[in-house]
Amino acid sequence: MPKAEILSIGTELLLGQIIDSNAQFISQELASFGIDCFFRTTAGDNKERIKDVLKIAFNRADILITTGGLGPTADDLTTESIAELFGVSLKLDAVVFAHIESLFKTFNYKMPESNRKQALIPEGANVLPNPVGTACGIIWEIAPELLKAAQITVGSQKKVIMTFPGVPRELFAMWRQTARPYLVDNYADGVLWSCELKHFGIGESALAEKYAHLLRLENPSVAPYAGRWECRLRVTAKADSGEAAKVMARPIIDEIKRSSGTLCYGTDDETLESVAGRLLRESNRTIAVAESCTGGLVSTRFTEIPGSSSYIRLNVVTYSNEAKKKMLKVSESVLDSMGAVSEACAEQMAKGVRQLAQTDIGLSVTGIAGPTGDSSNKPVGLVYLGLATKDHYFGKQLNLPERLGRSEIRYRTSSEALNMVRLYLLEKAATS
Amino acid sequence: MPKAEILSIGTELLLGQIIDSNAQFISQELASFGIDCFFRTTAGDNKERIKDVLKIAFNRADILITTGGLGPTADDLTTESIAELFGVSLKLDAVVFAHIESLFKTFNYKMPESNRKQALIPEGANVLPNPVGTACGIIWEIAPELLKAAQITVGSQKKVIMTFPGVPRELFAMWRQTARPYLVDNYADGVLWSCELKHFGIGESALAEKYAHLLRLENPSVAPYAGRWECRLRVTAKADSGEAAKVMARPIIDEIKRSSGTLCYGTDDETLESVAGRLLRESNRTIAVAESCTGGLVSTRFTEIPGSSSYIRLNVVTYSNEAKKKMLKVSESVLDSMGAVSEACAEQMAKGVRQLAQTDIGLSVTGIAGPTGDSSNKPVGLVYLGLATKDHYFGKQLNLPERLGRSEIRYRTSSEALNMVRLYLLEKAATS
Repeated sequence: MPKAEILSIGTELLLGQIIDSNAQFISQELASFGIDCFFRTTAGDNKERIKDVLKIAFNRADILITTGGLGPTADDLTTESIAELFGVSLKLDAVVFAHIESLFKTFNYKMPESNRKQALIPEGANVLPNPVGTACGIIWEIAPELLKAAQITVGSQKKVIMTFPGVPRELFAMWRQTARPYLVDNYADGVLWSCELKHFGIGESALAEKYAHLLRLENPSVAPYAGRWECRLRVTAKADSGEAAKVMARPIIDEIKRSSGTLCYGTDDETLESVAGRLLRESNRTIAVAESCTGGLVSTRFTEIPGSSSYIRLNVVTYSNEAKKKMLKVSESVLDSMGAVSEACAEQMAKGVRQLAQTDIGLSVTGIAGPTGDSSNKPVGLVYLGLATKDHYFGKQLNLPERLGRSEIRYRTSSEALNMVRLYLLEKAATS
Repeated sequence: MPKAEILSIGTELLLGQIIDSNAQFISQELASFGIDCFFRTTAGDNKERIKDVLKIAFNRADILITTGGLGPTADDLTTESIAELFGVSLKLDAVVFAHIESLFKTFNYKMPESNRKQALIPEGANVLPNPVGTACGIIWEIAPELLKAAQITVGSQKKVIMTFPGVPRELFAMWRQTARPYLVDNYADGVLWSCELKHFGIGESALAEKYAHLLRLENPSVAPYAGRWECRLRVTAKADSGEAAKVMARPIIDEIKRSSGTLCYGTDDETLESVAGRLLRESNRTIAVAESCTGGLVSTRFTEIPGSSSYIRLNVVTYSNEAKKKMLKVSESVLDSMGAVSEACAEQMAKGVRQLAQTDIGLSVTGIAGPTGDSSNKPVGLVYLGLATKDHYFGKQLNLPERLGRSEIRYRTSSEALNMVRLYLLEKAATS
């Protein structure tokens, strides 16, 4: 098996201005293919130093993956450094150039002269296309004579370099489109197939404890990962074909799904909002959301799903008491006696928005996201959720720790709200 | 000035199981003392590989900072590797041993035999105490004869190594107690101060071109960074004191602010939503948002700001045509003849939501976020924004590339909407 190394390039990393999440992502990917990565290096925007680390890394490894330094400015030096190290010239790639030009055209911007630089590719290298930005990379299997000239040991494996921009969104898209298939085609001796089982309502360590017997397995293997208020179990199997690997993984996946029950909300690319949306569509139900402390986040997440207009018509963010009264018919007496952050207010909001939007389900959120509490001395992190249907009402109270901060209290609350809809629809489907 | 390097040690980093926030923290600290850090390296729990990277790093730098590998288990190899590299033996440090024993006593645990290992220190090294855990580190100015024996170049600066555990909380405590005072006493010949100037409406390369003459400066220095549909110029100055550095940076900051005008929306932690919010508060104005394709994202971003309830009362997500008619009084004829994604609809939505919420400003967004278009054959990425006040109406059309995808079309649109509010309020403030 080949060895890989990751080079993160950018002075902003060495100044600690940004955290290197790209290196973590690539590390996870390499591990998932069983490719060893023994070293990672970070260097700044300096040609000599980049060349030095390229040389050190290529003397230790077969696959080099670089991130950063592909931008249009003078301190973006990755491509130039690689070309210099291997003593080849840069040539303008017409396809990349046209791609960059077309991007500027779509935005109605004039292409600055500096962006021309991004179309320069070392002689002999192939383009690693960037479907979402101007910074294309290269993917280059380097000829032995070039390696020798650069004083790099030629081993039994071919040596290949792949370059990516530092912008994570662009890196991810390019990785999926080109790097992942390349690694599979060239190195996977056997095919890996994996499936992520996404959980909400259980922590990573509790999940690891629950499935300790599975985490010890080797093929299929099971590994836990933490997410944003949720966690995943990744089941990976290796076999001669994807189909065979899938068959091997199936019993493990079934066991986890059975044992986790509704704690496991979906797989792979599914999200709480996509699953809630699918259940709404499948059951032909519509929903309306009335939010206070989340300020539109539940609505934003629901509508992130393509086709959500089939179950969403109208959502409201009733931030003030006036708005709650006027739009949702929350009563003066509830607001006076119990306040806007109360079980009674959540109930009236859920029923009110259902009435207003004429939907099957009304969902409400009212709480204190902080950093300061309201006048009632209720604690930051106190949240009430409500779900109203024609015949039923369900309420839920959350007591989130203040220390999470405004942004995470809001996000966690929005996940709980989406999950409440999911659980309600699952139960309806089971009993109908 | 000395050069520093950071070595992060731990196989869990190379597998991507955790992100290296320690390296970011130490990078920031070094930068704040003006100590150059040109490389960072990550190695796994393997003695030979750790020794290799120690040697490479010590040949390039004067200060080596390691994290990880100080635990009690067999795969914690940092201290052993250092001792082996410099050919010295490990001896039990009585003070550290007593510290570890006392920690176990406080927790009423019997000390496992394996923890004895954590009290082993290379002959000649000093202890770097850990006030909050068992994993003490070392701080060691290495004698020239030991360096020579390990084939490490002896330079004009003394060479020192400091080791820290991987647990961030322990590292931070040890850093504050020992490393920071050591670096200040031994190296600080100046203090860095920096400021980020955040821009919206201009790309990174155009910004770099506009300020090419500033990017060449050394002290203060200026560097461009790309963000999510925005970009930043960071101005950094080094002087004897923070105050003096700030005074040095001031003329550059002023020049950029003057020349960028409204393209520069704020500094450091400011966001489009915080600046729009501040301008609303300062001018004592309220706002209401009616969203279609962004589905609540503009509302979510506005309300992410603490205290936004002073200018936000009610926002609506009118996803369906029915909702637009009912809530915002968008006319049947506009919807029939021009459709919901039209300039006329944006205007009626902005005016309608202003009326509904009784605010000074009404803001509207209607567009096609994709992935599929609407029945009218309008292109994905077509968006209309509207801003209505008592006397005025401003509209804006965006033609975003379909290829951005639903999520980025929505995010970019929300930024444009926030920016529209900012520009309106800036102009109002200038002319009043």
